[in-house]
Order: sequence, then structure tokens, then C-alpha cells
Amino acid sequence: MGGGPDKEHLLITMWEPEPKHITAELKRRFPYFDITYIPVQRKERQLSDSGRDVPDELWNSATILITLATLPSTPEKVPNLKLIHLLSAGVDHILNHPVLTSSTIPVTTSSGIHGPPITEWVTMTALIASRHYWTEYEWQKQRHWETDRKKLVSGTDWVGKTVGIAGYGSIGRQVARVFSALGSSIHAYTASPRDTPSARADHGYFLPGTGDPDGTIPSAWYSGTSKTALHTFLASGLDMLVIALPLTPATRGMFGTAEFEIVAHSSNKPRKGKGCFLVNIARGGLLDQSALVKALNDETLLGAALDVTDPEPLPEDDPLWDAKNVIITPHVSALGSEYSERAYDLFMTNWTRHEEGKKMFNLVDRRKGY
Amino acid sequence: MGGGPDKEHLLITMWEPEPKHITAELKRRFPYFDITYIPVQRKERQLSDSGRDVPDELWNSATILITLATLPSTPEKVPNLKLIHLLSAGVDHILNHPVLTSSTIPVTTSSGIHGPPITEWVTMTALIASRHYWTEYEWQKQRHWETDRKKLVSGTDWVGKTVGIAGYGSIGRQVARVFSALGSSIHAYTASPRDTPSARADHGYFLPGTGDPDGTIPSAWYSGTSKTALHTFLASGLDMLVIALPLTPATRGMFGTAEFEIVAHSSNKPRKGKGCFLVNIARGGLLDQSALVKALNDETLLGAALDVTDPEPLPEDDPLWDAKNVIITPHVSALGSEYSERAYDLFMTNWTRHEEGKKMFNLVDRRKGY
Repeated sequence: MGGGPDKEHLLITMWEPEPKHITAELKRRFPYFDITYIPVQRKERQLSDSGRDVPDELWNSATILITLATLPSTPEKVPNLKLIHLLSAGVDHILNHPVLTSSTIPVTTSSGIHGPPITEWVTMTALIASRHYWTEYEWQKQRHWETDRKKLVSGTDWVGKTVGIAGYGSIGRQVARVFSALGSSIHAYTASPRDTPSARADHGYFLPGTGDPDGTIPSAWYSGTSKTALHTFLASGLDMLVIALPLTPATRGMFGTAEFEIVAHSSNKPRKGKGCFLVNIARGGLLDQSALVKALNDETLLGAALDVTDPEPLPEDDPLWDAKNVIITPHVSALGSEYSERAYDLFMTNWTRHEEGKKMFNLVDRRKGY
Repeated sequence: MGGGPDKEHLLITMWEPEPKHITAELKRRFPYFDITYIPVQRKERQLSDSGRDVPDELWNSATILITLATLPSTPEKVPNLKLIHLLSAGVDHILNHPVLTSSTIPVTTSSGIHGPPITEWVTMTALIASRHYWTEYEWQKQRHWETDRKKLVSGTDWVGKTVGIAGYGSIGRQVARVFSALGSSIHAYTASPRDTPSARADHGYFLPGTGDPDGTIPSAWYSGTSKTALHTFLASGLDMLVIALPLTPATRGMFGTAEFEIVAHSSNKPRKGKGCFLVNIARGGLLDQSALVKALNDETLLGAALDVTDPEPLPEDDPLWDAKNVIITPHVSALGSEYSERAYDLFMTNWTRHEEGKKMFNLVDRRKGY
């Protein structure tokens, strides 16, 4: 008997076919893993409450579970489970599941790998809006080379603009990095104060060469969970507000009519006179969606780019589809061919840290809800 | 008689109505300027060979001319002219005009102010292509929230990619800044070698907080005007090639079948396997356009984003409109509501340097053609 680690039974449940190069890499790095890969049904995008595709004996023997949203019906079914690694960034979709509420099994998320693709979605949609790209796209479809200057809608660029980022995690930090490169100033908003270098640093997982590891990009920080604190941030003169917060009971409906009016009034400075563009890449429930529709239609807000809505899918007759200057995509901002590999890389980094007795990244605090 | 500067007669000819806040600022900074603003006709976008809208006595007394493309028919008409400041970045459209060929009147361009808007166009179109945004836009028009993962075309992001930039002026440098922030490596290509810190630095005009002033962003530099030098750059494993070179007799038709094959072969590495995306924001004549259509249609190239074509306007029956994976816009990448103000700011900076006996930015070298 050597001093090697115990056998582990890694159970992976995911809707995709087994990514063989990834499971091979897992086996290479952790030879003591037995790996079972179960492809599961997938009906809706966000939620799953069912582990019916997984036989009970597999639940019973599993010591590590990697999944997006497939859990056994009760924690009693997984007596040997010592870690759940979620392939999603958020945990809100399973937070009320018995396995979370009635057990203390550690849960880690894939938060940290979403920064680059989601930031690219934010950048793309902000530029599509600020440059009026839709007009150009329709011209191209008609093979029409426009020469009338009056029709050459010119838009504005992001030099000298101010971008407010609510939630300064791995996504917010990468948005800050890119818009800072475009020439904008960054105002960050966080629940807890960031008044020391250590508090400003990113202690979570992030892809090398991305983000704002030391938290040095923002020219101003705002913090606090009170309405007043939020409103002070929103009144700081924002040309764009990017919502990158977790959805928790405390943040649900956080942005409504009052908030849209404050941010619009503050951004509507004579020098800029353009109003504020709103971006939501977090969860639809963070916004009061009827208030958003109204703020778009009466041009309180300059426009919005939404990758998330409430509910999802957004019903065909929802008035949000008809709101002025809105870009809507079906919760795709994090997707990309690099996603799986990075999510499993994060797990491997975390398991190595666990082996070395270090604290893992992205351990979910069930009380906070993220 | 004080020691102040002589009276100057600044003549401005432009198709826009007089921007009063700008002419007021010119008068405030240079009280000894007499300013005449002549709005001129504008039929085509790129070219004008006519100064017919300007009376001869104004040509005769003008000492400074600010224009996009309005010149007198001969240099004899402007005996007192000591500077022509162009509101465009390029000078190719008037390089063969008698006023340039038969006089030594200094000409300055507005090169340097185009970095941010053109970079935003490059970033937007590259992201539209890499994220397959057109599909999402059409879904939105149909009020369709897609949930079928197979249809949720995922694309790739720019972390770990390599972006080649041909022409490392103010535009190339800002593209480098932004794609570096997105996580890409930058390979720069320039005609002259950049083997010292001073050679790598930006000695031209640029907007504060933008670009790559010290030339420290590229991880690799390639230089030389020979085919071999160009091909070495193109073979360096590029996921995107951005053409940001001036159009001169030496660069016309610089990119053709051989170049597209080299860049595609080199980018088509097993790890990436995605081929190379081509971006042209300079001039259509830099490319062999039929070769480009072929390289797109046979998928040698992954796609292209073109803000410039040859000719412009691109005729409705041009096969380029039908090429695979092409984004075409009607020479709009530099446009924006900030344009005029920045172009005049550049002139004011330059005239102040002239007053102080310093060399002006962006003096055109008629022999080089830029």
C-alpha cells in the first residue's frame, strides 16, 4: 500500500456526448479516478430537477459529481459524495434543491471562465448599438452601398465615456479591461467595500491574461447594499451600465424605475447628452422587466442589450420584444467552443488545490447564494 | 506694432454646415486668424477635384486651407498658401492633383484620430463573425427565443488567438490595444524595421489613453517591403489579419491568392483549426479583389470584414456581395460624431507646434505617398 490518494468515483452528467479528450486528460492527471459519464436529457436551458437518467447505484458510489443541473432527488442517495462541481457560473437554479438545502456537500461553480466570452458579447452588442450596425447589415443584404451622408448614421465611440459595472467579479473585470482599452473610464460597484489592495484583488478563478487581477482599472469604486449606495453609484455619470451581479433574494428586482431614472438623469450631461445604455448578462430577475420596457419606450434609457430575460424563454407576445432600441439574444453570451474545456480545467485546478490542502476556488456560500 | 504673429487667412471648405463651436474655438485660440468657411457640394465620397465653389479672391488670399478634398485647379491660384490640413487620414485621393505635384506647400493629414472608431468597427465585425451574430439578429426579428442547443451556434472567443496587423500606425496600435485586452497575441508588420525602442514608439498623433505609444504590445514584429518579408509575417500563425496600410503604388494589390493561401495554411493549426479571418479598413486597392472572392468562396479564408472595396461604391452586381462569410459596410468605419472635433483639434495642436517652431504631426511625404 503506497501513500497515494484513495480511489475516487467521478460521476459526470451532462447533455453533451462524452468529450473523450477531456475525460482522457482527467484520467491522465488523476489516475486514481474511476470516471462514469452519463449523457442526460435536456429539455429546458436553465433548470433541471431530475437525476432520473442516473441509476441509483451510480449515485450511491459517486464521490465527485460534475454536472450542470442534474442532482439526485435527495441527499440520502449520494452518501459518499464529497464535491459537486457545477459547469455553470451561477448556482441560483439549484439553490433550493434538497441536495443543497439538506446537506453540507461542498459545491463549486465554473465562475471565472465566463469572463472572456460574455465580455465579447457585451462589447459586440454595445458596439452594434453605438454604431447603429443593424442599418449597415440591412444595406448589405440589399447589396446597397450607401453614399448619402445623411443616411450614414455615424454614432459615437467609447473614448472618454464612463462604463459602470455592477458586480466586479471575473466578468465585470474583463469588461473593465476591454472598455478601458477602448478608452472608457470604469466605475465599479460591489456589495462589500473594496478599500484595500487585497479587497480590490480578484481572489477567484480567472483565465490568465484576462480580467483585472489587482483591481486597478476602476477610476472609482462604490459599495454597499443599501438603496442609497446603489443610487450613488448610478448617479456617477454612466454612459453604460453593465449588470454582472448574482441573482439572490437580496438582488432580485434591484433595478427598477427609480434606478433607470437616476442613471439616465446622471448620464444626460450636456457634454455627452446621449443617455445611458443598459446591459444585462446576469439574470433577468435582477430587473423589473416592465419598468425596463417602459424606460426603453419613453427613451429614459438609450437602449439595452439583454442576454437574459424573465422568464426564459421570453414568450413571443412579451412586450420586451417590441421595446425601442433593444438587443435580445437567447442566453448565449457564455457559449463558445472553449467552454467545456475551460470548465473542466477549472475543476482540475480545484481538485489539485484540494489534494494540496489549499482552499478551492468558487466554493458556494449557500447562505449568500453564490 | 507688437511681436505677435502675422494675420493668417484660414479658409475652410467642407460639405458640412459650419461647425460654429469649432470655428469659435479656432478664433479663441488663434485670435489673429481671419476665418472663411465655405460649404461645398459633395457628390461622391472619396474624391473631389473641384474648387469651383470657392471664389478666386479667397483662393488668392488664403494662407491656411482646411479641407477634405477641395483644391484650386492649379497651385498658381493659391500664391499665399503655407499649409493644407486634410480632414482625412489618407492623401491618396489627391496625391496626383497639380497642387500637390507642382508645389511644395506642406500638407498635413488627420491621421491619428481614426484609431478608436475604426478599431471599434474592427472589433465589432470580428465579434459578429466569431460569434455568428447574424443568426441571433434574425431570431430576434422573428421574436424567437432559441433553445435548441444544436442551433445555438457557439463560435469561439479571442483568448489565446493571434492577430496580425499589417501597418502599425495609430489604427493598428489601437486594434492591438483592444485585442490584447481581449486576450489575443499581436504580430505587427511594418515596412521599416522596428528594432529599437524609438523605432517601435508612435511618433505620430494619437488620442490620449489610446493606442500603443511605446510599441510594447506586439509579441512579434515583422518588417520589410519584399514578398519574402510579407510572407514570413503571414506565415506566423494568424487567426485574424487586419490590413491597416496606406495605399501607394508599392502597396497596391499587395494581398492576392499567394498571400491568402499562406495566411490560411499557417493559421490552420490542429489546435485552432479555424483558418484566418481577414479585415480591411484601409483601401480596397490593397487587395486583389477577385482573388479575395475566390479565397472566401473556396473557404481558404474563414471570412472577411470589409469597410473598403475597389471600386467604391461597390456595384450591385459585384460578386463580392455574394462571397461567403463576408461583412461589407460602405466606408463608414471612421465616421462618428466625434470626428470633426478631433480633426480640428489635431490642426490646432499642429498649428501650436508650428508657432513654437516644432515639427508638425502628419506632414505628408509626397514621395512615399503618405
